[in-house]
Amino acid sequence: MNVIHRQVGGAGADALTARYHDVRARTDALTAPLSPEDQVVQSMPDASPAKWHRAHTTWFFETFLLLPFLPGYRRVREEYAFLFNSYYEAAGPRHARTMRGMVTRPSCDEVADYRAAVDEAMVALLRNPPSQVPALLELGLQHEEQHQELLLTDILHLLSANPLRPAYDVAWQPPISTGSSRMLDGPRGVAEIGHGGHGFAFDNEGPRHQTFLSPYRISDSLVTNGEWLAFMSDGGYREPLLWMSEGWAMCQAEEWNAPLYWEKRDGNWMQFGLGGLRAVEPDQPVCHISWYEADAFARWAGKRLPTEQEWEAAAALPGFADADRIGWQWTGSAYRPYPGFRPWPGAVGEYNGKFMINQMVLRGGSLATPPGHTRPSYRNFFTAGARWQFSTLRLAEDAA
Amino acid sequence: MNVIHRQVGGAGADALTARYHDVRARTDALTAPLSPEDQVVQSMPDASPAKWHRAHTTWFFETFLLLPFLPGYRRVREEYAFLFNSYYEAAGPRHARTMRGMVTRPSCDEVADYRAAVDEAMVALLRNPPSQVPALLELGLQHEEQHQELLLTDILHLLSANPLRPAYDVAWQPPISTGSSRMLDGPRGVAEIGHGGHGFAFDNEGPRHQTFLSPYRISDSLVTNGEWLAFMSDGGYREPLLWMSEGWAMCQAEEWNAPLYWEKRDGNWMQFGLGGLRAVEPDQPVCHISWYEADAFARWAGKRLPTEQEWEAAAALPGFADADRIGWQWTGSAYRPYPGFRPWPGAVGEYNGKFMINQMVLRGGSLATPPGHTRPSYRNFFTAGARWQFSTLRLAEDAA
Amino acid sequence: MNVIHRQVGGAGADALTARYHDVRARTDALTAPLSPEDQVVQSMPDASPAKWHRAHTTWFFETFLLLPFLPGYRRVREEYAFLFNSYYEAAGPRHARTMRGMVTRPSCDEVADYRAAVDEAMVALLRNPPSQVPALLELGLQHEEQHQELLLTDILHLLSANPLRPAYDVAWQPPISTGSSRMLDGPRGVAEIGHGGHGFAFDNEGPRHQTFLSPYRISDSLVTNGEWLAFMSDGGYREPLLWMSEGWAMCQAEEWNAPLYWEKRDGNWMQFGLGGLRAVEPDQPVCHISWYEADAFARWAGKRLPTEQEWEAAAALPGFADADRIGWQWTGSAYRPYPGFRPWPGAVGEYNGKFMINQMVLRGGSLATPPGHTRPSYRNFFTAGARWQFSTLRLAEDAA
Amino acid sequence: MNVIHRQVGGAGADALTARYHDVRARTDALTAPLSPEDQVVQSMPDASPAKWHRAHTTWFFETFLLLPFLPGYRRVREEYAFLFNSYYEAAGPRHARTMRGMVTRPSCDEVADYRAAVDEAMVALLRNPPSQVPALLELGLQHEEQHQELLLTDILHLLSANPLRPAYDVAWQPPISTGSSRMLDGPRGVAEIGHGGHGFAFDNEGPRHQTFLSPYRISDSLVTNGEWLAFMSDGGYREPLLWMSEGWAMCQAEEWNAPLYWEKRDGNWMQFGLGGLRAVEPDQPVCHISWYEADAFARWAGKRLPTEQEWEAAAALPGFADADRIGWQWTGSAYRPYPGFRPWPGAVGEYNGKFMINQMVLRGGSLATPPGHTRPSYRNFFTAGARWQFSTLRLAEDAA
Repeated sequence: MNVIHRQVGGAGADALTARYHDVRARTDALTAPLSPEDQVVQSMPDASPAKWHRAHTTWFFETFLLLPFLPGYRRVREEYAFLFNSYYEAAGPRHARTMRGMVTRPSCDEVADYRAAVDEAMVALLRNPPSQVPALLELGLQHEEQHQELLLTDILHLLSANPLRPAYDVAWQPPISTGSSRMLDGPRGVAEIGHGGHGFAFDNEGPRHQTFLSPYRISDSLVTNGEWLAFMSDGGYREPLLWMSEGWAMCQAEEWNAPLYWEKRDGNWMQFGLGGLRAVEPDQPVCHISWYEADAFARWAGKRLPTEQEWEAAAALPGFADADRIGWQWTGSAYRPYPGFRPWPGAVGEYNGKFMINQMVLRGGSLATPPGHTRPSYRNFFTAGARWQFSTLRLAEDAA
Repeated sequence: MNVIHRQVGGAGADALTARYHDVRARTDALTAPLSPEDQVVQSMPDASPAKWHRAHTTWFFETFLLLPFLPGYRRVREEYAFLFNSYYEAAGPRHARTMRGMVTRPSCDEVADYRAAVDEAMVALLRNPPSQVPALLELGLQHEEQHQELLLTDILHLLSANPLRPAYDVAWQPPISTGSSRMLDGPRGVAEIGHGGHGFAFDNEGPRHQTFLSPYRISDSLVTNGEWLAFMSDGGYREPLLWMSEGWAMCQAEEWNAPLYWEKRDGNWMQFGLGGLRAVEPDQPVCHISWYEADAFARWAGKRLPTEQEWEAAAALPGFADADRIGWQWTGSAYRPYPGFRPWPGAVGEYNGKFMINQMVLRGGSLATPPGHTRPSYRNFFTAGARWQFSTLRLAEDAA
Repeated sequence: MNVIHRQVGGAGADALTARYHDVRARTDALTAPLSPEDQVVQSMPDASPAKWHRAHTTWFFETFLLLPFLPGYRRVREEYAFLFNSYYEAAGPRHARTMRGMVTRPSCDEVADYRAAVDEAMVALLRNPPSQVPALLELGLQHEEQHQELLLTDILHLLSANPLRPAYDVAWQPPISTGSSRMLDGPRGVAEIGHGGHGFAFDNEGPRHQTFLSPYRISDSLVTNGEWLAFMSDGGYREPLLWMSEGWAMCQAEEWNAPLYWEKRDGNWMQFGLGGLRAVEPDQPVCHISWYEADAFARWAGKRLPTEQEWEAAAALPGFADADRIGWQWTGSAYRPYPGFRPWPGAVGEYNGKFMINQMVLRGGSLATPPGHTRPSYRNFFTAGARWQFSTLRLAEDAA
Repeated sequence: MNVIHRQVGGAGADALTARYHDVRARTDALTAPLSPEDQVVQSMPDASPAKWHRAHTTWFFETFLLLPFLPGYRRVREEYAFLFNSYYEAAGPRHARTMRGMVTRPSCDEVADYRAAVDEAMVALLRNPPSQVPALLELGLQHEEQHQELLLTDILHLLSANPLRPAYDVAWQPPISTGSSRMLDGPRGVAEIGHGGHGFAFDNEGPRHQTFLSPYRISDSLVTNGEWLAFMSDGGYREPLLWMSEGWAMCQAEEWNAPLYWEKRDGNWMQFGLGGLRAVEPDQPVCHISWYEADAFARWAGKRLPTEQEWEAAAALPGFADADRIGWQWTGSAYRPYPGFRPWPGAVGEYNGKFMINQMVLRGGSLATPPGHTRPSYRNFFTAGARWQFSTLRLAEDAA
């Protein structure tokens, strides 16, 4: 675990405990608007029930911290090892992903008990943590923060499948648009990207390394709903020459004609979100689009998606970063390891590395991302057809 | 509606109200052991959530009784017309069957409110019921009784998909075996079958008509788990010549090697039921088998399944009927209309008639069937591959 | 094999040989218009390549006659035992049905050689046939005649998948309409049906037995294209209440709006047949419809399909039989065994019995049926959704 | 078309005609061992019939050269425009890819006629070619060379599906192993890759551009069957931690336990190839593996796949190139556009660009590649699960 260990450093036990409680409490707060029914249903194979997110994040602490480092600790319930393992082959057999929605028991209350019991044990562990603990603790908290966003994306998908279009929280704020649609000149030539400094980073963000950037420009803004409506009006969803071949096949098979969660009511485009069904606002950034759609839009606009290297190198430009909290931005880069990449040792080595195929990188962050969770080197990734994330795009182009 | 009307006759308003309350209360009692999570999940396309069963049966009264016959009645919520219609084309558009499990809202409590509001209106209607009401009321109650059984079969399927194997009710009684494995001589020649007398019957049970019975014998008992274990030991699930071609394909594709809900633990066969996971009892009737398995077993035993005509004609023989409350008995008859069959007029005409293809008839009843719900002319029906019902078999053979 | 034996009787060796040559030559004649490419392709899992039909029918004689009864006979090629077994579990392992179209080798010429070698051996066997041979020979010839029709139905399906719409034989005659659309009174009460007399019959046609017929009438004619066009104009393919629930689902999923092989060109309905693409003739019987469509049409017409018992009992009525050579007529009967049914002993016992589930019976015959092949007791059977056979319908109704 | 034009330059008319004939004749020679049956069948959606390859390459010349540039030219047959368009949206509607195997007509002979007619017209065109013709001609010939390799890969797949395991050509040479398993030091720092010089190149090979190479080493040899057997013996196909998550899922779903076309006979591993079924030779390079397998093997070996930039930069190293004619080498690079990439203008712009998603790059060439067809900048690409190509791997590793 030395790789992680080095990256975190030695916060005091009290600070560790406080941060632990903060993150855990935020998960509970996000779950508060949800009924037991809302929390148990799995709306598609790619999504997980809210209750599962709550239990799995708890399983992570139990499995990777309490069992190895808290003497005498025993699992709250043996079967949870099987039920709430997500994809760690090294952690033993696990429940099939597609069956997560069948687990009506343990109930929400029992999962709350599970969380409380693990929290109590974690507090005990953090009183006098062995040297490996702080780094793994931070990984567990970052992991829980990732699931906080997934919990919201998955709940939105579930609620969207309800003909009543119920809101998660009517007070949920729609995204705010920023930027001036200016194309910024990006850095050129040999540049360094990847995480290399202090503070936590995932293994897939490193090592920091040199790359070569051909001349390019990149927008200081995200594409808006208004621009997307122009794309739609211009036949964007009907012209195959704008699309990757595979994207066009999916567009036709799934009958895409607008971003996910858009629907026409009485001739007007509405979008469903965590706040319910609302009119599409032309000035807000477009959201819930696949990579295929983002790529087609960029081609229609006579531009292209930035590579993740271009994106990261431009992140320090003035005016660039303001858009980052609004939506995850598809890049033109496939998710592959950096030169010199080494997965973390041990079971947590499965965290990122084994997904580095047939996924595209997204950069930035979204309204659903916990504050402070991301950084310029952060690499999010999803398949090119995924639409249920808070995904958007930023344009780039070649420069002379 | 005259067909139904004639069949029911004129019970007094108080009697109608009392029966209404009895049936409705039984549904609530069956739901009592279930958490909100248990009630919302749809474990497969053929099953429905418990909450949906509760709401749909209520929708039936609202749609076919309150709206037409209670002046000034308005739906508790307009969207329920769409959400809780099962398959009635004449009653307007409806939610997709496979999406029933997405409806986390309305909540269980809201569905309870729906039930209460409809019950209150029904009581008002039954105070002075128009002439068409008693027949339709009885249909609604028989309909709710059918859903009481389905609620149990569907919950069992859901709980079986949970690796924890939770019980619905640990006090649930296992089936009791009866009979002496004697082959009874059935009636021969021209016989009358089908419902023709007083009291309620579904449209598919009539009209009463003549049929011709070749000489046959029929068992006074159901096949037991012990006999089924002998079939298994003798390679019953491995010998294609015992099976229908289509059944053998399904047996291999789904890797059947025992009845549904059986699993081996530490070398012993266990069966999961509403009471939880228990040892297979050799003297109890086998349960949760498909028609394909029943047919293969009968061939292995040198016998065959009885036709539904043989079954019904034999139902009056001494010793025969005792087995009827234990499990639904697959027959060798495809579910098709009787000579002269006419579906009920109006929307309820879709109740049975449109399913008369690619289904096999089961006769009898089961432990999950409400007491008093069935009669000898009762025709239950499922596809030949269905295993999640409380299905069993009774053997027959040709006689000289 | 005694069951079959008894049914055939003792034709002389010369007559056997002559009949053998006749049937075999007819297969070759049917194949003559087909190129090697036409003969190898499998256009869907339910269809087989023409070359396979030619080889499989040869395999039948090799397997069930030459190997058991011709001393010293050895297979032309050992691998053919595997390649050309259709579905006989008792005859050993076999090539997957869905893979029949992969067998580009042996070539058409090699299959012709296979046929010639087996024919030569058969002639030797028939010079002095053991007592069991004549019955099995007749079965093999009847089997080959069945495959002659399948060869045509499968070739038509293949050619229909070619955008060029090539004809099998431009001289192929379209079906001729007969009858006067009169409803004939059928026999009533106890009647005998099933094969019981002299001459060959398949095991599924017996035993001859008593049945009970409620009063009915049956048409002396088949439904015509003109009547079908009226059904279409009246929304027959858009009104769910006319359809079985399962049929309606298939109608929507496969976007049926006319019989199979119909297509609209320049606003006119055309039908593709063995003679190529031709205008739909209103006076000809409709063809290439599924049971679901036939059933929906009958309901639309205020009538119903006859049961197979009604059909067979009516077959002796004057004017009835003339339609039999035009198209197979869907009945309202599921394909199940008659009372007292026994499959033939030995491997040929798999011929019919194991398909007696989820299929509907068709009676009559078609233009593609070899002359003299059928009789009134003949039971053809296909799944309710099958459309590629030469299938049509005849209406019936209840009588007072 | 200027981009292509510039790349080709002005060979004389005679030289163009001679090269045209050479390439076209090579296709015919490759087809010679195939029967009409072999040429018509489509063994899977990703493969095409040999006859289709012959016709489609002809369609390419007809569509992109004869129609625009030979005055008065008319298509040999109008329907071929539809039948033999592969994926060019700009060239109009086209036959569904999955239905290519249904086209039994036109026959092989008619396709030969089609080829001859187009060849004759091409000769006429090349007598006095307009200025745009030489570049498009070269593209058409390169295109046909690509289909020559695909014809062989697709035929091998088809023949492998035949239980008789027939050879395409018993004289086909197995791959020869070269190299000494030495790890070569690759160039470091800023390097130039991509095609930039004279001669033909596909649009996806350019523009030539700078890239940055971290220190690495790369093998001078391909992985051998013997090394692959060691991977298999060590549980390579059973250990999920060696695999990408998605690859492991595919490995299990498709039950991979060896390269494609390997099978065990009498306890010995055999491999099926164009020369038939032969013993696995330990010293030959492994072939017919997916990217997932190549990636898992590299991880097992403590190494990794080279990126395509590393591969191309190393291509000039002594000893490297000898392996290139043996098998296509999977790289660690996703197939994406180079900086500054522009597809060719016009319909041929669909040639490469629209496939730049969810594919991995292969470099080198194979025994099935026409001599002289590839160069160091050549980018082949297939999905990570594809196994039917002549694919192999070369290892790399990070250097200090």
